[in-house]
Amino acid sequence: MQKKSIEVCLTPALLNLYDIKESVVVVIDILRATSSMVYGIDNGAEAIIPVAHVEDCLSYADKGFLLAAERNGEVVEGYDFGNSPFSYIGEKVKGKTVVLTTTNGTKALHMAREQAHQVVIGAFLNLKALCNWLKVQEKNVLLLCAGWKDKFNLEDTLFAGAVVNELRKDFTHFDDSCIAAEDLYLLAKDDLRAYLHKSSHSHRLAELNIEDDVRFCLQFNICQAIPVLVGEALVAMEPAKG
Amino acid sequence: MQKKSIEVCLTPALLNLYDIKESVVVVIDILRATSSMVYGIDNGAEAIIPVAHVEDCLSYADKGFLLAAERNGEVVEGYDFGNSPFSYIGEKVKGKTVVLTTTNGTKALHMAREQAHQVVIGAFLNLKALCNWLKVQEKNVLLLCAGWKDKFNLEDTLFAGAVVNELRKDFTHFDDSCIAAEDLYLLAKDDLRAYLHKSSHSHRLAELNIEDDVRFCLQFNICQAIPVLVGEALVAMEPAKG
Repeated sequence: MQKKSIEVCLTPALLNLYDIKESVVVVIDILRATSSMVYGIDNGAEAIIPVAHVEDCLSYADKGFLLAAERNGEVVEGYDFGNSPFSYIGEKVKGKTVVLTTTNGTKALHMAREQAHQVVIGAFLNLKALCNWLKVQEKNVLLLCAGWKDKFNLEDTLFAGAVVNELRKDFTHFDDSCIAAEDLYLLAKDDLRAYLHKSSHSHRLAELNIEDDVRFCLQFNICQAIPVLVGEALVAMEPAKG
Repeated sequence: MQKKSIEVCLTPALLNLYDIKESVVVVIDILRATSSMVYGIDNGAEAIIPVAHVEDCLSYADKGFLLAAERNGEVVEGYDFGNSPFSYIGEKVKGKTVVLTTTNGTKALHMAREQAHQVVIGAFLNLKALCNWLKVQEKNVLLLCAGWKDKFNLEDTLFAGAVVNELRKDFTHFDDSCIAAEDLYLLAKDDLRAYLHKSSHSHRLAELNIEDDVRFCLQFNICQAIPVLVGEALVAMEPAKG
């Protein structure tokens, strides 16, 4: 494939407009689902299974999996931990399978896996590793922002822009969303947290009192892992394929 | 209403996510539908009726209306003119009703009118007049970008950002799309044409050989008219309501 394209799908509600049969889809839900997934796989989790509802976790209860669920920012009683990336440290997740509850991120993942050639997980935490891998695939790329209740959000778009910026020399076709996302990223990149203070979502996050999580999720390149969807589970990309 | 909100709906495919019953919806299709509408009403057209298909024009053929339709950048045989704003000069349209064919813009208009409190038309040509009017309405505002085949496009988003920028002091709530649109506008405003050369859509436009139209549509504030949808027709906003 000589000419590779990148497109940015700004919310899952627009995914049906894109032909992704031959594309790698990168699912992006920076605060906090895909950041926690990347961190967990990087710390040796055997697999992470994303589900949409707290109740969906229960069907995994007897399998020895760790169950992660939050409501209103608190770990649900009887569950092992919540959605904070700080829960996904090696001491807790190494060698384990984690069932993770997330709404926006799971919806995007489930929609993408129906059609895409391959589904991988992106976050600022694994930006460089992800982009180095995308560069050498002979595939078009769709960056799928999980958004917020099917609407556009800033943090996922900024990450999409970061990927576009890294891949600009290796791809030839960019859609209008790529251009917008990249320019917003270039405005924000020197202080992502300050930029996100402009965001309506950021105000909501402040109310949830997860400032430490937000700052953690905005770190660049502290992980090498690229989670890839195999069946219903995210697992580490085999180095041989990287 | 003490606290007024602005939201930007980046494509008509997302309109169902917004509650617009009490809102003024501004329909935006800069290249070229809403620019031609603003210019035509400003030049004294009695009304402009937007329809989705060339064939839809035919049902108006016996009413003495001017019919505007293009295919592949050429005026359709038997029609009075095409979609170029240069067709909407006073000599041609003053006192006349024009039936205008447009795909993206008509779709957005028809979707909005089902639910919105009021639907008005925006373009760079009437930016200031439109914003001065929006400032004194006791209504929330939804800026509805017509986009390109339900996808995001840069030129409509830049205009939405220009409106947000004008209204920032008079409104209190802005969503993430507002922030993105405004920041992109601030990047682009000193030379909109140069900025749009980045756009995939711009390349398409270049192929249609409508560069003069594009430059015309990117002019600021050469019109005072605010077209408002009444039934199926766009007419001039009454000055008394302004």
